[in-house]
Order: sequence, then structure tokens, then C-alpha cells
Amino acid sequence: MEVEKVLHMNQGNGETSYANNSTVQSKIISLAKPETEKALVGLLQRCLVDGTTVLERLGIVDMGCSSGPNAFRVVSEIIDVVFAECQKMDRPVPELGIYLNDLPCNDYNNVFVSLPEFYKRLKEEKGDQISCFVSATPGSFYGRLFPKKNLHFVHSSSSLHWLSQVPAGLTSCNTLNKGKLYLSKTSPRTVVEAYTRQFQDDFSTFLRSRADEMFPGGRAVLSFMGRTSNSDPTDDVGCYQWELLARALTSMAAEGLVDEEKIDSFNAPYYAPSGDEVRVEVEREGSFLVDRIEPLEIEWDGGRVLGVAAAETRGETVARTIRAVVESMVESHFGGGIGDELFRRYAVVVDEHLCGNKAVYVNLVVTLVRRD
Amino acid sequence: MEVEKVLHMNQGNGETSYANNSTVQSKIISLAKPETEKALVGLLQRCLVDGTTVLERLGIVDMGCSSGPNAFRVVSEIIDVVFAECQKMDRPVPELGIYLNDLPCNDYNNVFVSLPEFYKRLKEEKGDQISCFVSATPGSFYGRLFPKKNLHFVHSSSSLHWLSQVPAGLTSCNTLNKGKLYLSKTSPRTVVEAYTRQFQDDFSTFLRSRADEMFPGGRAVLSFMGRTSNSDPTDDVGCYQWELLARALTSMAAEGLVDEEKIDSFNAPYYAPSGDEVRVEVEREGSFLVDRIEPLEIEWDGGRVLGVAAAETRGETVARTIRAVVESMVESHFGGGIGDELFRRYAVVVDEHLCGNKAVYVNLVVTLVRRD
Repeated sequence: MEVEKVLHMNQGNGETSYANNSTVQSKIISLAKPETEKALVGLLQRCLVDGTTVLERLGIVDMGCSSGPNAFRVVSEIIDVVFAECQKMDRPVPELGIYLNDLPCNDYNNVFVSLPEFYKRLKEEKGDQISCFVSATPGSFYGRLFPKKNLHFVHSSSSLHWLSQVPAGLTSCNTLNKGKLYLSKTSPRTVVEAYTRQFQDDFSTFLRSRADEMFPGGRAVLSFMGRTSNSDPTDDVGCYQWELLARALTSMAAEGLVDEEKIDSFNAPYYAPSGDEVRVEVEREGSFLVDRIEPLEIEWDGGRVLGVAAAETRGETVARTIRAVVESMVESHFGGGIGDELFRRYAVVVDEHLCGNKAVYVNLVVTLVRRD
Repeated sequence: MEVEKVLHMNQGNGETSYANNSTVQSKIISLAKPETEKALVGLLQRCLVDGTTVLERLGIVDMGCSSGPNAFRVVSEIIDVVFAECQKMDRPVPELGIYLNDLPCNDYNNVFVSLPEFYKRLKEEKGDQISCFVSATPGSFYGRLFPKKNLHFVHSSSSLHWLSQVPAGLTSCNTLNKGKLYLSKTSPRTVVEAYTRQFQDDFSTFLRSRADEMFPGGRAVLSFMGRTSNSDPTDDVGCYQWELLARALTSMAAEGLVDEEKIDSFNAPYYAPSGDEVRVEVEREGSFLVDRIEPLEIEWDGGRVLGVAAAETRGETVARTIRAVVESMVESHFGGGIGDELFRRYAVVVDEHLCGNKAVYVNLVVTLVRRD
């Protein structure tokens, strides 16, 4: 599986599009907002108050911006905080160089179509007191994306749980992780180790790349799927949505609708680390200080819009949100057209699970400061 | 007509797409290449040799990049020159921040899909000696697009002949320019004046915006449609492709296929200035020195690929290249679906004209230096 080609949210504005099914991610952005604000205020206090020269430009990036309504939402919130804070400090607002990043296969046309509206609203709300210039920088954040010393603030939401590749060693013909799509209680030790190692490699590459691109004192606020158990990567929190997707696929395999070997050979390029694992990697890489690591709980159907939800079960809501994210990846492995039937069954399986179980994602919100 | 919504080359990779019909623009890039090289060498000699500090980053933009094969072509050529020149001077290659600009309605997905291949080829050809980071910056170049002092080199090919709007005063219900789409021998004085004034306003806005964004000593190489006659904006060179398109539309109007009033009310947001007009605007704006203005002649069917051309008339070749550029604009005014019939007739009209007439475009290649 070439992650860079198949990891993209469902395009367009249709029923199964990410644009119409990104309420969980939206909820996560809302929950992480206070951390984003704190980090921005810290950054501005350092840059604007302690600095000896006037700060002319702030470089800000949202990594894994995706498309749809969330794409400009984070950026708008960041601009609001910067604007308010500069007014509070009675300083002119620096010119803002805003970068939206995602993989090259992201639906950027869908993002750019909203850009004139974004600029118009900014002008209406803040007049000429703010100059903001938006660019898109397509590419994997597991590697350099910007020239040196270009960024002051790095934001990433619901993206860093995606690995750069299926863990090395778990190639597509490998059946070590039989019947499963991700880590599970039945996963052998070698599979768990392959996943943790891939996370460590990827996360430290991410940190090293950002360290080059950021100014000293720059802040990063990164939120991504994690888990609460420090010792057990196969803990249900962080894994169980995959467990149930495997169950839906297995039921299709039993009816000959899916090749069982295909299930064995699928390994999601995904990892939900613990707070401790994140801290260890940041310290090992050495360029950043950990300011805070906050675990946030979000229900699986978090951010469920009542109008829509009234007509569907909670399982259907969960299936919609998961489908918008993983369908392109799943279809590239299991074959196109599997989506409708798979996610219909997934909704049923999720409903069965939710009946009697509390099901939450844990999102880690990690705030880092670039060392001098 | 909202230019920002309708001015885009034909999308995708189909028969009438810009990607498959951009040989004239490609030819223009080839012809202007020596000017681009000269300007880059001048820039690097100033930055790398005269400079007291090491230049860490070069900011380069291609404005009006469009999509298809030309989108990365200019950028690749620029990188080649920078690389060769740094090697010649025995200096490390600065990190390159490359920006691709076009209107938000440009097909950026089509551009980005080629990005991994672009990076791969760069790595194969030049190894680790060069670091290049590509972003896209959607928006009109008749206004600021980047933070201050961000760019060293501005390139634009086949774009600046498009105005920011239909000239003020020639609104859509205006019939001053009866039966014509652009300036013509029959255009009244007020129409000619409206066009020249719009060009002056737009071009000086372009210069003022770039002046803010560029470093002192930065270079701009701008090539766009122009004319040879200094005194007469209705000179055939620069206008006649529109004259013939009007003729094709009029023949359709005669058969009731097109509303005649629609022809009267269409005014192309286009202007082909003379070298003198350009020089006057640059001097009036004041931020740049004119290094050179070179007029280049390109035949209407310039860059005709023989394999394809063998099966078609020269008129058909010309019609294909014009269609890829103006169809979205024409259809938004005259109604969707007009393209097939209009450009079939246009091909015939062009063939009639070419039989006995030499037909060339004049492209002005303008090299500017940002004053200190």
C-alpha cells in the first residue's frame, strides 16, 4: 500500500464525503482550542514583547488540513487569537503567512474554492488591520516541507496518528496479524513491535523536519488519536474501531464477499501512542520542550448533528465518519465498490458494541516549544 | 463577468483540455528562456557574489502557472539554471522556496498529482545538493499574495494580458463595442480608452504588489501578449484572433444560434499593450528598473506538433489552442455547450484568414529589477 496515494479523505461534497462527515474531527478541534490559544499567546508574548525588533511576519501552518469546512476553520481560529492578542498588547498585527498542508492527493480544489470567501470574511471582520496570505504546501509531513526558519506556529489535528507507511516488516503478503486490520489482543509481539517502531521512526522524523523549519521559540500544537494505557498498545481505546471493522469484513468473508487473505494482509498505517511514548520521542529527538500533553476523550459519535442523527442509529453515525476517512484506503486494498456493504455491516456491528459499552477515542493534545 | 470565476484554462486531460493544447504557451516559454536565464544569472551574481552574508533561501514564484505540463516546466528550468550557476560560482545552492500561483479556480489537483514525480526527478538528477519546497498560492496577482520581502524572482508567462476585470465602463449591458469581443478598428474612442486605462490600473497594481513582496535587487521576467504598434491599440497584431472569433459568433447569430446582443455585450478582459506602454507604467510606478523589453513573434499555430497536426488544418490547430484558453469564459457568457459549434466555425474562419495572410502573435518579454 502506497500510503501517499491512498490516504485521503473522501472527496467532493456528496453523502459519503469527508466535507459532510467530519464532525468528530471538528469536535476535536473545538476541544483542543484552549491549548491552541495558550500556545499562541505564549508565542506572541515571546515574539512581540520580549523581541528587540518588530516581528514583520508570522509563519503558520496547519498540517493535515484536509478539505471541507474544517480546512479553513483552524486557520480562522488562529487568526482570531493572533488578532485579539495583538490588540490586547497594543502591537501591530504581523503579516501572516498561512500554509495549508496535506498529502498531494488531498482535494485542494475543494479547499481553494472557499479561499475568496475566506479573504472576504476576514476583510469584513477585521478591515485593513490584518494582512494574511494563504498558500498550500502539498507533501508528507514526515519530511521537510518548508525552507529553514520559516515557521512560528505549527498546528496539526487528527493527522499524526497516520503513519508514513504500513510498518516495515508487515508487507502486504504477511499474515502475522491474521484476521485483524490493526493492533489487537491477538496480535503477536512482533506485530506490536513493528507498529511501535514505525511510530517512533515517523514521529522523530516529523520532529526533526519541523525543528529545521521553525524559529527558536516557535510553538507546535499537535492533536491526534492516542490511548490512555501507557504499557499496552493493544488497549481497546485506540484500537477497537479497527477491531469492529475487521469483524464487519470477516462477516463478508464468511459469505464469500471478501477474500479472507486480503483481511490477513491488510495492516492500517495507523498508530495511537500513549502520552509517555510521545514524551520519550520528543526528548530523544531533542529539538523541542514538551509544554503539555493533554488527553481528551471524545465519544465515537462525538459531534453528532441532531438533525441528521435523528434519522439514523449511533452506529450509522460512527460508520459515516469512519467511512469518510478510511474508504479510499480500504477500497484500494479490498477493491472498489466494497464501501456500501462494508459500512452498512460496520454500522450494525458498532450498534451492537455501543449497546452496553461506552466507546471513546482518546485524543492527545501535545504542545511543544522549539528550543533556542 | 466575474473574471476570477471564469478565467481558467480547460481542466482535466481530455481532447479540449489546456493540458493537451498548450503548445503555443510552451513555445513562448521556450523563446523567453534566454531572458529568464540572463535575469537569474544577474540575480545570483548579486546575491551570491556581492552579498556579505550567505544567502540561505531563494523565493521564486511562477504567476499564472495554470495546470498541465507547463505548470512544472518553468520551475524546473529555473531550478536548472540556479543549480548550474551556483556550481559555476562554487557556492552552495540556497534552499529554494518555490510558489506556483494562479486563480483559485485553476485545476490545482492536476498540478499536485505531478508533484511527487517532480521531487523524485529532482532527487535523481541533483541528489542532495538541492532542497526545493513547492507551495501553491491561489489568488489574483492584481493584489498582494505574499508577505513582505519574500521573493527574489518572479516569473510570469502568458498571463498578464488578462485584465482583472472587463474594463470599467464596459458593463455587460453595454453595446458601445457592437459586434466585437475586444478592440477592433470599429471600436469607438471611449472603448479604446476604457481598455488602456484598465491595463494601466491593473499593471501598476501588479507592480506595486510585487514591489512589496520582493527583496531589493530581485528580478521579474514577465512575458505576455503585446503588439508592435506603439500608437494603435487596435492594431491587428494583438487583436485579430478576437476579430475572427467575433466573426464566427456573428455567423452563428445570423442563424439564430447565438443572441446578437450577447455578442455586443461581451468584452474580453484582455489587453495587448505595446512595449512603450509597459515602460511608461513601470517608470510611473517607480519601484522597478526596466532591464529589457523584447518583442517575440510566434505564429498562431506556433509549436504545432506534427503528429497531431497532420490530421488537421492550421485553422483547427489554432482553434484548439484558443478554445482551451477562452472556452470557460465564452461559455459562461453565451451559455454552456456552445463550444463545439463555435470553435468548428472558428477553425474555418481562421483557415480562410491564414490563406494569404501571415498571422503572428507578438509576445513581450519584460525583465525588471526591483530597485534598492
